[in-house]
Amino acid sequence: MSRVESLIGEVEDPSFDILRCAHVELVVSDLEASLGFYDGLLGMIVTERAGGVAFLRGWEEFLHHSLALRQAGAGEEPAVDHVAFRVASEGDLEALAEEFGRRGCPVRWLEGQPGLGRALRVQDPFGFPLEFFARMDQVERHTQDFHLQRGAPILRFDHLNFHVPDPESAFVFWQQLGFRCTEYISTDGEDERITGAWLRRKPTVHDVALTAGTGPRLHHFAMWLPEPAAVLRVCDQLAAAGHVECIERGPGRHGVSNAFFVYLRDPDGHRIELYTCDYYTGDPDIPPIRWSVTDPRCRSFWGTRAPDSWYEESSRLRDLDGRLVATRPAGVDERTEIMA
Amino acid sequence: MSRVESLIGEVEDPSFDILRCAHVELVVSDLEASLGFYDGLLGMIVTERAGGVAFLRGWEEFLHHSLALRQAGAGEEPAVDHVAFRVASEGDLEALAEEFGRRGCPVRWLEGQPGLGRALRVQDPFGFPLEFFARMDQVERHTQDFHLQRGAPILRFDHLNFHVPDPESAFVFWQQLGFRCTEYISTDGEDERITGAWLRRKPTVHDVALTAGTGPRLHHFAMWLPEPAAVLRVCDQLAAAGHVECIERGPGRHGVSNAFFVYLRDPDGHRIELYTCDYYTGDPDIPPIRWSVTDPRCRSFWGTRAPDSWYEESSRLRDLDGRLVATRPAGVDERTEIMA
Amino acid sequence: MSRVESLIGEVEDPSFDILRCAHVELVVSDLEASLGFYDGLLGMIVTERAGGVAFLRGWEEFLHHSLALRQAGAGEEPAVDHVAFRVASEGDLEALAEEFGRRGCPVRWLEGQPGLGRALRVQDPFGFPLEFFARMDQVERHTQDFHLQRGAPILRFDHLNFHVPDPESAFVFWQQLGFRCTEYISTDGEDERITGAWLRRKPTVHDVALTAGTGPRLHHFAMWLPEPAAVLRVCDQLAAAGHVECIERGPGRHGVSNAFFVYLRDPDGHRIELYTCDYYTGDPDIPPIRWSVTDPRCRSFWGTRAPDSWYEESSRLRDLDGRLVATRPAGVDERTEIMA
Amino acid sequence: MSRVESLIGEVEDPSFDILRCAHVELVVSDLEASLGFYDGLLGMIVTERAGGVAFLRGWEEFLHHSLALRQAGAGEEPAVDHVAFRVASEGDLEALAEEFGRRGCPVRWLEGQPGLGRALRVQDPFGFPLEFFARMDQVERHTQDFHLQRGAPILRFDHLNFHVPDPESAFVFWQQLGFRCTEYISTDGEDERITGAWLRRKPTVHDVALTAGTGPRLHHFAMWLPEPAAVLRVCDQLAAAGHVECIERGPGRHGVSNAFFVYLRDPDGHRIELYTCDYYTGDPDIPPIRWSVTDPRCRSFWGTRAPDSWYEESSRLRDLDGRLVATRPAGVDERTEIMA
Repeated sequence: MSRVESLIGEVEDPSFDILRCAHVELVVSDLEASLGFYDGLLGMIVTERAGGVAFLRGWEEFLHHSLALRQAGAGEEPAVDHVAFRVASEGDLEALAEEFGRRGCPVRWLEGQPGLGRALRVQDPFGFPLEFFARMDQVERHTQDFHLQRGAPILRFDHLNFHVPDPESAFVFWQQLGFRCTEYISTDGEDERITGAWLRRKPTVHDVALTAGTGPRLHHFAMWLPEPAAVLRVCDQLAAAGHVECIERGPGRHGVSNAFFVYLRDPDGHRIELYTCDYYTGDPDIPPIRWSVTDPRCRSFWGTRAPDSWYEESSRLRDLDGRLVATRPAGVDERTEIMA
Repeated sequence: MSRVESLIGEVEDPSFDILRCAHVELVVSDLEASLGFYDGLLGMIVTERAGGVAFLRGWEEFLHHSLALRQAGAGEEPAVDHVAFRVASEGDLEALAEEFGRRGCPVRWLEGQPGLGRALRVQDPFGFPLEFFARMDQVERHTQDFHLQRGAPILRFDHLNFHVPDPESAFVFWQQLGFRCTEYISTDGEDERITGAWLRRKPTVHDVALTAGTGPRLHHFAMWLPEPAAVLRVCDQLAAAGHVECIERGPGRHGVSNAFFVYLRDPDGHRIELYTCDYYTGDPDIPPIRWSVTDPRCRSFWGTRAPDSWYEESSRLRDLDGRLVATRPAGVDERTEIMA
Repeated sequence: MSRVESLIGEVEDPSFDILRCAHVELVVSDLEASLGFYDGLLGMIVTERAGGVAFLRGWEEFLHHSLALRQAGAGEEPAVDHVAFRVASEGDLEALAEEFGRRGCPVRWLEGQPGLGRALRVQDPFGFPLEFFARMDQVERHTQDFHLQRGAPILRFDHLNFHVPDPESAFVFWQQLGFRCTEYISTDGEDERITGAWLRRKPTVHDVALTAGTGPRLHHFAMWLPEPAAVLRVCDQLAAAGHVECIERGPGRHGVSNAFFVYLRDPDGHRIELYTCDYYTGDPDIPPIRWSVTDPRCRSFWGTRAPDSWYEESSRLRDLDGRLVATRPAGVDERTEIMA
Repeated sequence: MSRVESLIGEVEDPSFDILRCAHVELVVSDLEASLGFYDGLLGMIVTERAGGVAFLRGWEEFLHHSLALRQAGAGEEPAVDHVAFRVASEGDLEALAEEFGRRGCPVRWLEGQPGLGRALRVQDPFGFPLEFFARMDQVERHTQDFHLQRGAPILRFDHLNFHVPDPESAFVFWQQLGFRCTEYISTDGEDERITGAWLRRKPTVHDVALTAGTGPRLHHFAMWLPEPAAVLRVCDQLAAAGHVECIERGPGRHGVSNAFFVYLRDPDGHRIELYTCDYYTGDPDIPPIRWSVTDPRCRSFWGTRAPDSWYEESSRLRDLDGRLVATRPAGVDERTEIMA
């Protein structure tokens, strides 16, 4: 058993139960422009607008929101305010507060956010602003309102992808939170290092992916579409509406996850992946899949090279006080490996 | 060579050049309700409304209309006012007028229809009200306005399907007009008879199909969709909007034509087929495909039985003076053959 | 809160953890003919043949089998030998044995089945032969071997559907096993009764559905396909190979579950559903969806009536000693309700 | 009317009737390797092998072949032996021979090619080796043999794309042969020049495209697939089989033609496009669509930049005596325009 394999093996269940990743709150420079993208072009449902924040959800979702767009104040940059995870019960929030306190992380309780119950905010050891919550207001699902659906349609929140300078240490951390590895990319040879890892709570390929890059930053969040044909349709619609510049990479098939995807950039450059057709991972003994970083198919199963922007650009994070979190470059550049 | 085979072989090119079937004009009992269906639910483009008639087209079409909906007067029944064919030139209209005159058919010239050049109207020997025209106003194509497209989307007019009591005699007539047989259904055994025939001018499977049934009536007209996924989408949308009663048969694959289809009924019961993915037939020596009437796959490649309404119900026709054309039953009932 | 609603609310988590439904073992009259269907036509992978039993799996599955086909002995009828569920650990098997023992159900332990760890077999209070297991041999996944995939392709086991004379009492039982209701069909009015219920362990719409009908019998088992286009393709392939008689119902969209489906019958009449595109149900507070039995869209979202065979025919069950389990008719006939 | 517009207007019908482009004969360095690609990976049907040449066709085609692969002799380079067009009658061959003779082009008659009637070979004024024929042996169509189809499946030959140093003069020539322009790309401003043109005989977007580049060379030939999902499937299959290097560009939507496409390179670098979903062009007055060379959507509707190889590499041509035809660079580089 290699060092990396034993790293993946070393896991014990924590005392709390995180159900899944749940939403993201983006700071945007022009809320109307952002709504023009997520509502107007992609066709998400606006549940509510309150106090300079718009709350949106997908057509299948029964909870208040999976995307919040917050108007930046004067002089503020676009950034990620926080990313959020749903837990099974209020008790899990207490246990998580204790866990992050023990780690010396900043911890804060929030009440009264629109549509949301009590929420725990922490800044994790790598600088990511995480929110945990148990309760959210229920709203109407529109899964089968096919006659009203516009855009993709976007059905539900699927996952988060983080840029981190050192994927391995972040990997150890997320395993300790109860996340399990489904796939990973690593360097070849004796000095094997993880350069990317996909970890899940809900039984899909991932709730969180950790990939080598200047960080901590949010590389993208992803929304689930019903089928590959929907991914093609959204590209047609964006281009027809005069927004080809939004389409950054794809459509294509991922090697990792087997999903069909396209990556878009919103008006502030925040990256959203439209994603569909990964696989069931709910059995506890499902073996993680390893990809060599030199395999051109791990990123794009069809071998298409991602543009440099996709490797280099990501959304900056805010800490709990609203300041931008400092970043540092990664030790590994995946593109160099693939070229080698 | 069988009698039927020699029937198909006996063809000489006429002196006129019919390009393709082009549009249909339906008399409807409630124009707003019909527009709710073709515009609101199916998402066709309304080019113009004038004098109680609405003119619609598909998203790919550059001519003024491919569907006209005419409000019925008091006491008038829903019916087909006429079906139309485009010819290559004005000279072809003269030649056709001569041809139909020679056959003793009622012939009339019309000028000044909205969007349309000079038109020749005839009632053919079987009672069908046919229009021929060479020129129609050009309007903007919206093929790639994916962001505006609603419904299916419907791209263009594809074909007409006629209920005729005696398909063979109608078959001989349409061959004489220059239409060529691509597929046919016939009874087995020595007394072989054609029960259905598909004939084309443009190089698709058909411009006109002739099928055994009480007639003369229009069984359906068909519009082309971009791909099978679009056929499924329109069903989802109709059902979501509360109109499952519109969906009469399918979706499914045809044996004849290999197309993927669904049949819908409009508020007056006029039948429209949404149709995609047939094949190229432009080579002059392409051999007609024969299907035995006892083969369950000729109608539905997957063996699904069509409902009785699909065999029995059709739109009545108007003659050139606006009176309903009398009908008589067919000698052959395909369903009996399939059961036998 | 209605009586039915309170029935759905009354649930407490049991002491054992059933992960998901996992496989089915069918007794077949001609093993080669059945393999011709599941392997030859549908393209499943044969993992192993041993002692008159063939073990098959889908292209995404990493466990030994999800379908077992057992050659019937002389004089034996086609039937269901058992349906199986995976549990999280060996301890769960002990807890389940105790649970079923307490209920007075026949309980038996099996060792040494090909590919399978220790297994618990019980006959549940309604007569269903259930198997529970924690461990199964791992084999190679072929998720991305697109160049080798044949048929649909079938990716993985999805769910079981049981015909039961009294869905409500079975519903109470399955809730006690830890299954949660995602959707149900019930009669209208004061005397509301559940006529169908969909319950899940894994976060899809269901692992087990309970529908009113002569029972106990297995109505169908279902396999997951990658997308709706795959469902159409398998119909094309079956018809092309001369097996239209296998296609019983669909393809179509379900109202319940929102899935795209087709129902097939194997050479012994066992029914398999090919199923794709339902939705995520993993949040504990996701509200069950109620459908009125009079809504034509609950079964077929597009309103297409299912054939009588689909309501009437199902696979007989074997008890733990291999004898056919006696059946009795249901009190409710859904079709009558829809007609009413 | 601009100079370019009047260029497109200046057309008179010739005395011969070319039906459509029909096939291509490639000289390949390793026939078995090429068959591994076209037969093994793409799943075309091999009709016949004779004398070092393999003849292949698509699943919908009823003629002997649409692709011929000829084993190169010792020291011979991969190249295009000729591209072929079907004409309506033997008389059209005579008229074409006269036409090319009048132009001073080399003309040769061939008899006895496998599956083919008498053929006229010419080298056109731009250096392209063209074959014209009226008769080809008929073979069985397999349109609906879905159970046997492998790969894409490839249905039929669709078009040819030529690299020419001066697209405008080639454009004038092909119009004189009776081809009509459906779409074109031109430079902006007063000095407007055509940099690409799509011309058709059969009523699709094109039989022949002329694009600026070092030439004369064959940029690609294209085969028709049934739907976009098939294009995705062939990419999945090629990658799974370990041949990502074959996938050069796409899948994607074209601006010009609106088709969904992918470009592949065969083992000798010959380029094949898999193509589907363009539109009907059979009406004589359908207006040509102009694209500005600076519009990133004309090549890729979604704005994706084609790789340099796609602009630079093409297949060399053979003259009637089997020698490579000399090439010269184009005056215009489309990529520079788009960048500008």
